[in-house]
Amino acid sequence: MARRHRVVVIGAGFGGLRATKALRGAPVDVVLVDANNYHLFQPLLYQVASAGLDADDIAYPARGIFHRQSNVDVVMGRVTGADLDRRELQVDGLGPLGYDSLVVGAGAVTATFGVPGVAEHAFALKNLQDALDLRHHVLRRFERAALEPAMLDDGLLTVVIVGGGPTGVELSGGLAELFGTVLAKDFKRVDVRRARVVLVEMTDRVLGPFAPSLSAKALTKLRELGVEVLLGRTVERVEATKVHLTDGTTIAAHTLVWAAGVEASGLGAALGLNVGRSGRIVVERDLSVPGHPEVYAIGDVAAATDERGVLLPQLAPVAMQAGRHAARQIVARLEGRPTTPFHYRDKGIMATIGRNNGVAQLPGGIHLSGWLGWVAWLGLHLVMLIGFRNRANVLVNWGWNYITYDRGARLIID
Amino acid sequence: MARRHRVVVIGAGFGGLRATKALRGAPVDVVLVDANNYHLFQPLLYQVASAGLDADDIAYPARGIFHRQSNVDVVMGRVTGADLDRRELQVDGLGPLGYDSLVVGAGAVTATFGVPGVAEHAFALKNLQDALDLRHHVLRRFERAALEPAMLDDGLLTVVIVGGGPTGVELSGGLAELFGTVLAKDFKRVDVRRARVVLVEMTDRVLGPFAPSLSAKALTKLRELGVEVLLGRTVERVEATKVHLTDGTTIAAHTLVWAAGVEASGLGAALGLNVGRSGRIVVERDLSVPGHPEVYAIGDVAAATDERGVLLPQLAPVAMQAGRHAARQIVARLEGRPTTPFHYRDKGIMATIGRNNGVAQLPGGIHLSGWLGWVAWLGLHLVMLIGFRNRANVLVNWGWNYITYDRGARLIID
Repeated sequence: MARRHRVVVIGAGFGGLRATKALRGAPVDVVLVDANNYHLFQPLLYQVASAGLDADDIAYPARGIFHRQSNVDVVMGRVTGADLDRRELQVDGLGPLGYDSLVVGAGAVTATFGVPGVAEHAFALKNLQDALDLRHHVLRRFERAALEPAMLDDGLLTVVIVGGGPTGVELSGGLAELFGTVLAKDFKRVDVRRARVVLVEMTDRVLGPFAPSLSAKALTKLRELGVEVLLGRTVERVEATKVHLTDGTTIAAHTLVWAAGVEASGLGAALGLNVGRSGRIVVERDLSVPGHPEVYAIGDVAAATDERGVLLPQLAPVAMQAGRHAARQIVARLEGRPTTPFHYRDKGIMATIGRNNGVAQLPGGIHLSGWLGWVAWLGLHLVMLIGFRNRANVLVNWGWNYITYDRGARLIID
Repeated sequence: MARRHRVVVIGAGFGGLRATKALRGAPVDVVLVDANNYHLFQPLLYQVASAGLDADDIAYPARGIFHRQSNVDVVMGRVTGADLDRRELQVDGLGPLGYDSLVVGAGAVTATFGVPGVAEHAFALKNLQDALDLRHHVLRRFERAALEPAMLDDGLLTVVIVGGGPTGVELSGGLAELFGTVLAKDFKRVDVRRARVVLVEMTDRVLGPFAPSLSAKALTKLRELGVEVLLGRTVERVEATKVHLTDGTTIAAHTLVWAAGVEASGLGAALGLNVGRSGRIVVERDLSVPGHPEVYAIGDVAAATDERGVLLPQLAPVAMQAGRHAARQIVARLEGRPTTPFHYRDKGIMATIGRNNGVAQLPGGIHLSGWLGWVAWLGLHLVMLIGFRNRANVLVNWGWNYITYDRGARLIID
């Protein structure tokens, strides 16, 4: 039997999953490669960090997703390099893996922008271990405060979050609520009102990609929750328990979260592909890589543009649509049809600031905020979560948290 | 204001929690000390190891349990020693902690009985990290098998479980089901039928504390599930990928779980208390420590006996009843009343072997097995789980697993 056309998809994120699913029934064998054995629902990472959800609620075993798609094989491994001319990848633990078509959806990683001390002292929020590490660290600071209250003067319970995008805003709100509603009851002898959440944003408003009116509403809500929002400020350098801003201010803080930006995974460069700003792989209008019509780059790792040449944002809907598009191009080429340009259909953007409060900017100029924004956010995320079990678990946790103001996942496990 | 009588409770296990709760409303201040910030529901650890439940489903934040009990303070810390005459404990990170009454409920740890290689190569199943480590290790072996099928000859997918008590039996059944129902679908290209679960038991039957007829039923069910049960065999020594039995047999196995027995936590000796067999603290009939009527030992760490001088088993119900008893003795002494001997009220014992199958030996000579035994086990464990949230999460997971034969928690996180 002749070997079928083999498509290798790198990355089980939103883009890679969608590409793999879109190849269902196509006359190809798909190999989905990821360093982890699960798909991670990144938008809810901040809830794991703030003890609202369990790690397992937002991760789904990659193999389980494709039980009923017979042309998919999942490989847990790290891609380390490629020979694009021989159409061969290097995968840790597996050796060479040949392909006929390749879809690169390797995602993004935290960008420290070279700020001194960030790599050593800051927590990121890009993967499950990041979120668990941050949760454990913050809870440990509170346990320490119970034993040594004097350390509050040293910033023991101060969390500085750098970056006022959705991640920074959602985490700030989540932590402020965790402190105010749950930990204040857990630690009766600690003056939890002295626990600070400080959000540092370089520009003059939070949630930069949103309309200014929604940014203003988010800012008001954050301040209501007790988050200290510092606008127009940047971080100069970081020590273990101190954050130095460029304006000369120093904040004593035992916890620093770096949510100031991302850059594309280093995989583009490792594969020998042409990368542009922030390491994003340069692609043609059909998402293929210049000179390699059999290689596609999708999602956060790719520098896809819209019709006017404007770089598309690094958002889940972009990755999902690009994944499906790449799969369709592969099938088109197999059938001898020409490829077509990628058109992103705007799905809007959303962020939640806390209990009963969110902002949503939907297509058609629809802006939602407050309770309506929150409900829209809630519904969309539940629908997007893959698999009944996770959805049900998340619902149980959210319901419990909402009714009781509790956070059941505030465990320190190591 | 005069300082109130201070009771320090060591250990947030079944015994320590019950003792603390029983002191609600008493004219005492309670300090509950545990090295973790949560109560662990140990009977379900094997389900975390076999990917049926999340770690967070079976752990509950200790501070949360006592939000509404105003005389309790929780300290996360490790007790390292004591000066019993000065009535003072040494707690890591806190320094000296004085007490007027002390309840020691430090639990038990895995006993290796000095078998060479066990400490280095075996997995235990006593705490959350044990269960997660085992889960990750087993899942990684399957991922490896997908890349290197030849390693199956080397025992890559063989799990040897030593000890045919409830832990060994429940884990054997759980893993056999995980392999047969879920991983066989996950790993289509791996010959999962060659994955072995081998249960090694020293005596001539599994579930020694149960009636022989129930042991026989459990054995039949285990074998139906494909577990290879080796009775009357002991382990001589262990290597990284080999288990050597005393009869000369060698089993190639990349995973070894040591469930052959427990010994009391080393804390009894560290506190300078008189310990007997398996390190269990010698106690009077009222559970106080000889010569120290203000110190009580409860649960797995204590060598409590029944009326006839027979050592009580290391079971959750014994610990819970002992915890309540110790609390009552403390109050009695405060009120100038004499203490009373501890009487354990037998609650029976239960074990589950797999889907729709369990054995239960209840007071009054009632024996349940098969589906009835399973339902009894299920109901009891749900009722015993502390907190609505965990109960609901467990229910969601169990329902999902039951209906779909799936295991959503099969994630490798490190």
